[in-house]
Amino acid sequence: MSDPRFSEPSQAIQHIQAMINRNDVVEAWLHKQNQQPKHALVESLTHRQHLAELELLINRLHPADIALLLESIPPEQRGIVWHLIGDEHAGATLLELSDSVRHEVVSASETEDLTAAAQHLESDEIVDLVQELPQDVIPDLLSSLSEEERQQVRSAMGFPEDSVGAWMEFDLPVVRDDISLDVVLRFFRRQGELPQNAGKIMVVDDNGLLKGTLALEDLLTKSGDIPISEVIDTNPLSFHTRDSAEEAASSFERYELIVAPVINAHGKLVGVLRVSALLDLIDEIAQRKVLLQAGLNREENLFDPISKSAKNRWPWIALNLLIVFIASRIIDQFDAIISQVVTLAALLPITANIGGNAGNQVVALVIRGLATKQLDRSNRLQLVKKEFSVALVNGALWGTVTGIITLLLYQDLSLAFVMLLAMFCTMLFAAIIGVGIPIALKSLGQDPALGSSVIITGATDTLGFLIFLSLAVAIL
Amino acid sequence: MSDPRFSEPSQAIQHIQAMINRNDVVEAWLHKQNQQPKHALVESLTHRQHLAELELLINRLHPADIALLLESIPPEQRGIVWHLIGDEHAGATLLELSDSVRHEVVSASETEDLTAAAQHLESDEIVDLVQELPQDVIPDLLSSLSEEERQQVRSAMGFPEDSVGAWMEFDLPVVRDDISLDVVLRFFRRQGELPQNAGKIMVVDDNGLLKGTLALEDLLTKSGDIPISEVIDTNPLSFHTRDSAEEAASSFERYELIVAPVINAHGKLVGVLRVSALLDLIDEIAQRKVLLQAGLNREENLFDPISKSAKNRWPWIALNLLIVFIASRIIDQFDAIISQVVTLAALLPITANIGGNAGNQVVALVIRGLATKQLDRSNRLQLVKKEFSVALVNGALWGTVTGIITLLLYQDLSLAFVMLLAMFCTMLFAAIIGVGIPIALKSLGQDPALGSSVIITGATDTLGFLIFLSLAVAIL
Repeated sequence: MSDPRFSEPSQAIQHIQAMINRNDVVEAWLHKQNQQPKHALVESLTHRQHLAELELLINRLHPADIALLLESIPPEQRGIVWHLIGDEHAGATLLELSDSVRHEVVSASETEDLTAAAQHLESDEIVDLVQELPQDVIPDLLSSLSEEERQQVRSAMGFPEDSVGAWMEFDLPVVRDDISLDVVLRFFRRQGELPQNAGKIMVVDDNGLLKGTLALEDLLTKSGDIPISEVIDTNPLSFHTRDSAEEAASSFERYELIVAPVINAHGKLVGVLRVSALLDLIDEIAQRKVLLQAGLNREENLFDPISKSAKNRWPWIALNLLIVFIASRIIDQFDAIISQVVTLAALLPITANIGGNAGNQVVALVIRGLATKQLDRSNRLQLVKKEFSVALVNGALWGTVTGIITLLLYQDLSLAFVMLLAMFCTMLFAAIIGVGIPIALKSLGQDPALGSSVIITGATDTLGFLIFLSLAVAIL
Repeated sequence: MSDPRFSEPSQAIQHIQAMINRNDVVEAWLHKQNQQPKHALVESLTHRQHLAELELLINRLHPADIALLLESIPPEQRGIVWHLIGDEHAGATLLELSDSVRHEVVSASETEDLTAAAQHLESDEIVDLVQELPQDVIPDLLSSLSEEERQQVRSAMGFPEDSVGAWMEFDLPVVRDDISLDVVLRFFRRQGELPQNAGKIMVVDDNGLLKGTLALEDLLTKSGDIPISEVIDTNPLSFHTRDSAEEAASSFERYELIVAPVINAHGKLVGVLRVSALLDLIDEIAQRKVLLQAGLNREENLFDPISKSAKNRWPWIALNLLIVFIASRIIDQFDAIISQVVTLAALLPITANIGGNAGNQVVALVIRGLATKQLDRSNRLQLVKKEFSVALVNGALWGTVTGIITLLLYQDLSLAFVMLLAMFCTMLFAAIIGVGIPIALKSLGQDPALGSSVIITGATDTLGFLIFLSLAVAIL
């Protein structure tokens, strides 16, 4: 997998970067590309040696690491590395690249290079890549595939992004259900290979209907003359092409699956889901929570068109505006005292802001608790009690700190006392709201993270202003 | 895995819940427990039949589903279900339970029941469970293990929570490196079983030093008389017990691993890491981002002691307080105009609040982009441009909306114009800061999510007040 001289891929990458930065390699490459007349013969030989070493080093890296290398070097050097990657790694590297670098590499490549790279990929990988390739490459690429692969690519492209069909893979070992273990063993011996991390052999009947799965572990340990039907798991967890990929991923987590069959509406085996593919999805799902919490549509991508991104944020801006105008109306009711004590206007944001952030901390904790299922109906009240106690401690402490700062700034003991009390009360409310909002969202069938940051800020602002100004009226 | 009558585990769970809610089963169980005199013989027979059916249904469920069942029924019914679980599932079910329900179940159980349940677990699972068991159960449990298992449990308990050692498993197939494939095959045939999802066989020398791994796929397809050393991967990606589990998880994602050997400081094979265990960790890591963003220490747990939770939040509250007092000082500088136009105090929070939330949306997007590596040095500027354009559109649109609402509320055209302009400028600044903060945190070697929510709110508050009040002074 890696050069034995380097204990870590990152060391190999750094070494390669240093090599590229030595000008002679770049020069040697340019010579080779442009067939320019060579300088001194000796110099050129060294250059070519370096180039060959570079090529060797690059192709010893895992495609994920080649992609990282491409991403971390300046654009003008990417052409060199890209052209030194062997065809057998080029396609896999393309799949691992970030969108922007992939786009750049693809635009700068010849059609035949891209077709050659894609030919070393499995059908499901080609599907992922096809959407990123220029239109004129696709017919060439499709015509280079076998009829079976072409059909797999076409059908997989028809599945929605978040369905099992879009995440399934096609390189799976399949056997018929009417043979013995011995026959299965001989069959794969003759074939001479099994897909990497195959894990399980799929078992179907004459019509291609899924009958069960055979774990490689069982095939290895059970003796050979017994019929396959006696050994297979006849009721494996399987998925339909139209099932939600997100739910499939959570089943993989729940039941510790490595591979599971995918069937179509007629029960025919059409592919497999592998844990390696779903790892990416699981990561993606968790990342989405961060977006949801900030009030972003889950489908927003980093480089979506401006009009789409702008619209995407409207619902939450609108809700936010509504809440903050309500908070504003509350302040407006207290204009008499504010015109008497203008300082109140300056102190107004302090308790509301601290309350908002304290509330956000609680929200984050609750969202995680709900996601990991640590928080459930049985211990909700316990959490409310605990967060209330934390707020009692922190409210008293930071209320006092705020009171002292206010006293130092304005030499007004009543004002300092108002600040202390307001901070204390606002933090208590923030704790309760912070626990309540995600749980309420979940009870309403929504994602508990959905816009919770907008809601908590609005709620603590409104309450914070009300508490602070009411206390000011009462005490000052 | 599940009762053929139910296509989904959730259906089976609902059916079981309905059965428990029929009083006769509970009664039958109480009879059985307390050896109370039975009512009518016929009635009791039906009851016992129901109880047997219930037991059958429960034990057909996956332990993860039994745990879900226990979590979703009222506490007073948990005892029944818990006692109907067979010993072979009880330990695994305990591991799947939420902390609070596990605590409840464990407290209500007899020592011998817990020991019996734990005996069906692997050493690594016992390690996870031991920390949750009452002190008096542990000696009994340890003495029921084999010497080898006891050592595994003791050594694994010594590893820090976030190390590979704490996540490794011990049930792994191992062979010596000086035999042929045929011998390996015969060895496992004779053993009659391999761990579930073993995936790879570990190969060691006489001294237990790791020499390589043998994929089950290769063992199945290669012919039998060749020495194992010719087939094994002699340079597999392996981990040290002291390596970071988080980095191991990201290697699993990166290189699509299913299983990898774990070695100690002397190169001796001591266990394996499996993707199924790391799935939980990957999920946990992603969840932590949510906490970090809100300014929470990554180690905070839902039910940590109050003093620990309270202290955990101090650094960010302190920073927050500092920033908001700076914002307050800015408002204080404008006391002349506020005392002239008291309405300004009421309108003050509006632009700052909208700016804070708009900034949070951008931050969430950038954090995700950095985590998925879609955002890198090459396209940062492109993102700044895009977010600036989105802010231009949304600033103009929502600035106008805000202006119109202000006009309707106060019938003051200049004031409405101040609001429109302030909203527009604040949203532009929020976009730039929103892209800048996570990227700056990352450049400083910090997690880009670290406290970003606190920082962005502070920055937009300060700027929002300054912009709004300066515009008020200039225009009103």
